[in-house]
Amino acid sequence: MRVIQSISEMKEARKNILASVGFVPTMGYLHEGHMTLVRWSKNENDITAASIFVNPTQFGPQDDFERYPRNTERDLAMLDKEGVDIVFMPPVDELYPQGYNSWVEVKGITDKLEGISRPGHFRGVTTVVAKLFNLVQPHRAYFGQKDAQQLRVIKKMVIDLNMNVEVVSVPTVREADGLAMSSRNTYLNPAERNAALIVSKSIQLAQSLWTRGERNANKIKQQLVQMVQNEPLAKIDYISIADDDSLDEVDIINGRALVSMAVWVGKTRLIDNIVIES
Amino acid sequence: MRVIQSISEMKEARKNILASVGFVPTMGYLHEGHMTLVRWSKNENDITAASIFVNPTQFGPQDDFERYPRNTERDLAMLDKEGVDIVFMPPVDELYPQGYNSWVEVKGITDKLEGISRPGHFRGVTTVVAKLFNLVQPHRAYFGQKDAQQLRVIKKMVIDLNMNVEVVSVPTVREADGLAMSSRNTYLNPAERNAALIVSKSIQLAQSLWTRGERNANKIKQQLVQMVQNEPLAKIDYISIADDDSLDEVDIINGRALVSMAVWVGKTRLIDNIVIES
Repeated sequence: MRVIQSISEMKEARKNILASVGFVPTMGYLHEGHMTLVRWSKNENDITAASIFVNPTQFGPQDDFERYPRNTERDLAMLDKEGVDIVFMPPVDELYPQGYNSWVEVKGITDKLEGISRPGHFRGVTTVVAKLFNLVQPHRAYFGQKDAQQLRVIKKMVIDLNMNVEVVSVPTVREADGLAMSSRNTYLNPAERNAALIVSKSIQLAQSLWTRGERNANKIKQQLVQMVQNEPLAKIDYISIADDDSLDEVDIINGRALVSMAVWVGKTRLIDNIVIES
Repeated sequence: MRVIQSISEMKEARKNILASVGFVPTMGYLHEGHMTLVRWSKNENDITAASIFVNPTQFGPQDDFERYPRNTERDLAMLDKEGVDIVFMPPVDELYPQGYNSWVEVKGITDKLEGISRPGHFRGVTTVVAKLFNLVQPHRAYFGQKDAQQLRVIKKMVIDLNMNVEVVSVPTVREADGLAMSSRNTYLNPAERNAALIVSKSIQLAQSLWTRGERNANKIKQQLVQMVQNEPLAKIDYISIADDDSLDEVDIINGRALVSMAVWVGKTRLIDNIVIES
């Protein structure tokens, strides 16, 4: 496994690869979710590259950039064991040098859900992903469905800007008890870890209400709100049932809908989602 | 010469090219300036691709998108004669389909000069150039120094976003009497064509004042203002002497400076510039 820590070395390395390249961009502190992305990439490409980069431009001033968990040694061991070929770990001041001021932005669907709670977040995501795509030049790039809106934003960016990469969406990986895997789960103390289950349970409730025939989105949301409110350690940021394309809230579920939510458990913000469709 | 009129055909054609590709993006209505870009590209690359696309997103509501001159037949004959290999002419609704909403933006240096007179102009330019770069995937792309700020904005975009293309800047081509070549010159009636000379004359005056030792930017600007004001058909939009990197106005010329101006002659807006340096 080759670890590349500069832009110039990445460019040089990429020039010499003629085979197909799969790419797994990460912010490190890896878990089974990331490893699943890696396995999908290895299955579909000759070469798999991963990046580890905690991207400052996608964190707001109130966000957890400084305390975001980092453990490079462990990450590299995990990627090596999984058979990753290249790990790209650029320094922050090479991706964002003095005077940096160019941005890639998807408008519209970024105004909703996460975009409301985290203004500027998606501009940071699309910018860094565009930069990494230009440096790694992957044929395919792998993103988890857990970050449902991010996935849609990146797909939209790739289509709108005619980027030469196939965006592959990979199902959410969960702990045995249902909690969606996330590097941020490490913030949770034991009581919060237990309370955090309310998120996946709410998502499951939405699914099962829908399966039993409920199509009134507001009624489903009411039940989810009630469920989360019964958990004293949890505080709702948003609970949404939206059209899967536009991400506009729907009143009646009719076709593909994205049920998504963000919940604070203590100082940790957790997200989860499910797509329901006829 | 192959004329390509769809994105899918462009992608397919590009896949089969292993040689080096030079790219000349244009809005058509070609003149010797464009032909010079083509010749530079042919000199430095195996394959030369040009595009003809009047990009709606770089025109403001008050701009001349509708009346921008077009003559595809003549353009194609000129490009063919010059030995261009590929002409890419995508339809507007393929580059900007329904629901299109992704943008590439360089901040900072776009707030000045042209950016003040034409809000949103550079966002349209950087977005379409990024899209065309992704579709044509050139090794080198050729831009004229006449659009001095555009050139700097595109270079900044390429560096900031780590794009895999070398931006080559090509000196302004002028008519025998000094007028910088521009598709918009065609708007000028004979009296205006004569009055338009005031632009290149002013630029020359700045150069010669500087050569004679004047370093006070405001004194030079005053003389240019006076010169243009003596021409009844001309109206100044801006006259600028700026640091060549930041495009901030300077008081004292010290190192590389960009002298640039925009002048209305009748209903036609003309620009010109020169870089002066010790």
